Amino acid sequence: MPAHPAPAASNTPHTLLPLSLLATGKALPSRCVSSEALDRELGRAPGYVQQKSGIHQRHYAGSSESQAELAAAALRDAMARGGIAAGSIDLLLSASGVPDQALPAMSCRILEPAGLRPGTPAFDVNASCLGFLAALQMAAGLLASGAYRRIAITACDLASRGIDWADPEASLIFGDGAAAVIVEAGDGRQGILAQRFETHPSGKQMCEVRAGGTARNPRTGVQAQDFLFAMQGRAVFKLVSGLLDGFLQRLFSGSGRGLHDVDLVVPHQASHLSMQHLQKRLGLAPQRVVDIYANHGNQVCASIPTALHEAVTSGRARRGSQLLMLGSAAGVTLGGMVLAL
Amino acid sequence: MPAHPAPAASNTPHTLLPLSLLATGKALPSRCVSSEALDRELGRAPGYVQQKSGIHQRHYAGSSESQAELAAAALRDAMARGGIAAGSIDLLLSASGVPDQALPAMSCRILEPAGLRPGTPAFDVNASCLGFLAALQMAAGLLASGAYRRIAITACDLASRGIDWADPEASLIFGDGAAAVIVEAGDGRQGILAQRFETHPSGKQMCEVRAGGTARNPRTGVQAQDFLFAMQGRAVFKLVSGLLDGFLQRLFSGSGRGLHDVDLVVPHQASHLSMQHLQKRLGLAPQRVVDIYANHGNQVCASIPTALHEAVTSGRARRGSQLLMLGSAAGVTLGGMVLAL
Repeated sequence: MPAHPAPAASNTPHTLLPLSLLATGKALPSRCVSSEALDRELGRAPGYVQQKSGIHQRHYAGSSESQAELAAAALRDAMARGGIAAGSIDLLLSASGVPDQALPAMSCRILEPAGLRPGTPAFDVNASCLGFLAALQMAAGLLASGAYRRIAITACDLASRGIDWADPEASLIFGDGAAAVIVEAGDGRQGILAQRFETHPSGKQMCEVRAGGTARNPRTGVQAQDFLFAMQGRAVFKLVSGLLDGFLQRLFSGSGRGLHDVDLVVPHQASHLSMQHLQKRLGLAPQRVVDIYANHGNQVCASIPTALHEAVTSGRARRGSQLLMLGSAAGVTLGGMVLAL
Repeated sequence: MPAHPAPAASNTPHTLLPLSLLATGKALPSRCVSSEALDRELGRAPGYVQQKSGIHQRHYAGSSESQAELAAAALRDAMARGGIAAGSIDLLLSASGVPDQALPAMSCRILEPAGLRPGTPAFDVNASCLGFLAALQMAAGLLASGAYRRIAITACDLASRGIDWADPEASLIFGDGAAAVIVEAGDGRQGILAQRFETHPSGKQMCEVRAGGTARNPRTGVQAQDFLFAMQGRAVFKLVSGLLDGFLQRLFSGSGRGLHDVDLVVPHQASHLSMQHLQKRLGLAPQRVVDIYANHGNQVCASIPTALHEAVTSGRARRGSQLLMLGSAAGVTLGGMVLAL
């Protein structure tokens, strides 16, 4: 007999977990690249990149642009839109698939350009493309515990720094960007109605940047290729596709609600094929899906919060709406959260 | 007037935040290196490394050893000591100052060697040397929110992969290692009595590994030196030293207790000078401080949980003890947590 028997089976709680979205913001790097321009750069026939990627345009950071400063710009946008004083934020969580440098955490370099007061604690959270959702779950927990009152979350990736231009599939789908939200516990009328994450490590090598840590560096041996994003697209699609129905069942299980209760689905903007597949698989009319892919590309962990920001600022998501944020990430992790605004 | 006025000033809550430490574990890489052996390797006179670093021995991972597998070994140790079934753990948080690779999160590569069931969600948390404490704070929040019932935290760093042997100061203080804890909310008799983190970004460039992310890589330009740990030791010491008294006051403020209520201080094992300074500054008798530095070195984010593990397994920390875990980290972040066991 184990000394510590397993606790009662974990289920999505029936009750709402308080979380109030005070403000959202976004930022894009200065350089906007159309698919026509990319056709020319890559020596492709006109229309090739658009047809292959489903993207009209995306933004790429210039070589001197900083990931931490882009994240800070998104947070300043959120503070300005919400009329929120920087000094009222008592925790910064920074999510990124790949941060700007190995040490210290990127959040430490976001504080000053965001205008947060020195002494504001700053932590990084990483769950690849689902880092924003993971940080949001952690924020709801930290607010519930009383450790903090008002939390800022930034999500920022510069995928362009790791694109393998020799990869015909993965090279065309990405765009750079940042988004931010500011949250509080609120009055208990807004919050999380259901949430679930699952990491399936059989897919851990399906999406990788192998360098950047202790495993592959100049001391242990590293090649330039190891710094580039490598994806087994078909294998990821097969793994995620096989898990999706069960995952959604488990996500809603015990919540007393289902997909039909959701007003708007805010998916990770993985690729145009994955977006089309999700919409078809879930039987969603286009007006129930936030699709910003054609003008942003896959922005890694910035995709979901940028889509959330677009939904909020366009009025598609408003007080009283129920949103399902949903996606898959390198890992392979599936994640979903139903948020009542 | 801002649309969202600042919430009431945040203070350490008066009440205990439930958190029960079910088990601890640790793991060290296979190669144990004495300071005498390091004297010979570095061409130094016998006794030089010991005298400079205050370390008798430390462990360095061999070139084929994996950081994720070392973290998994620490978690297996914790599960074995606690009689805890791997299948009862419903979240893995992995902390590291520098993970093994840029993408996906290291936690995804810990699940399988730790024996956790596929589908267990896995996230990374990074607050440099304070990553374990940050993850523990997040775990307490997630348990309070009801999102999870039993959380495993691993903390693992392989500093040896980034030691700059040309740096006479920083090269000698590090050791590799991993530790793990398993926590639940418990029955409300154990938990966090006070906690506080502060990030002071004026020190953000005082301890760095500049490569490893989007800022310095083969695409943007990088040098071998950028992969090595660079520290401005004197500047860090001055910054942290100037902040310490105020930090401790703010940590205990509103908790109705002070340093005199703490049975045992479990500090980050930063260096022998920093440990001596802390002990003197806080007026702590040696029996109130857990000092494992001489046989481990500074294990980055694995230091605090390894020291916690040594305190628990040696019987110095036991049910009813009040521990203060305390340290500073690259960022520069100060962090402290008073835990009632």
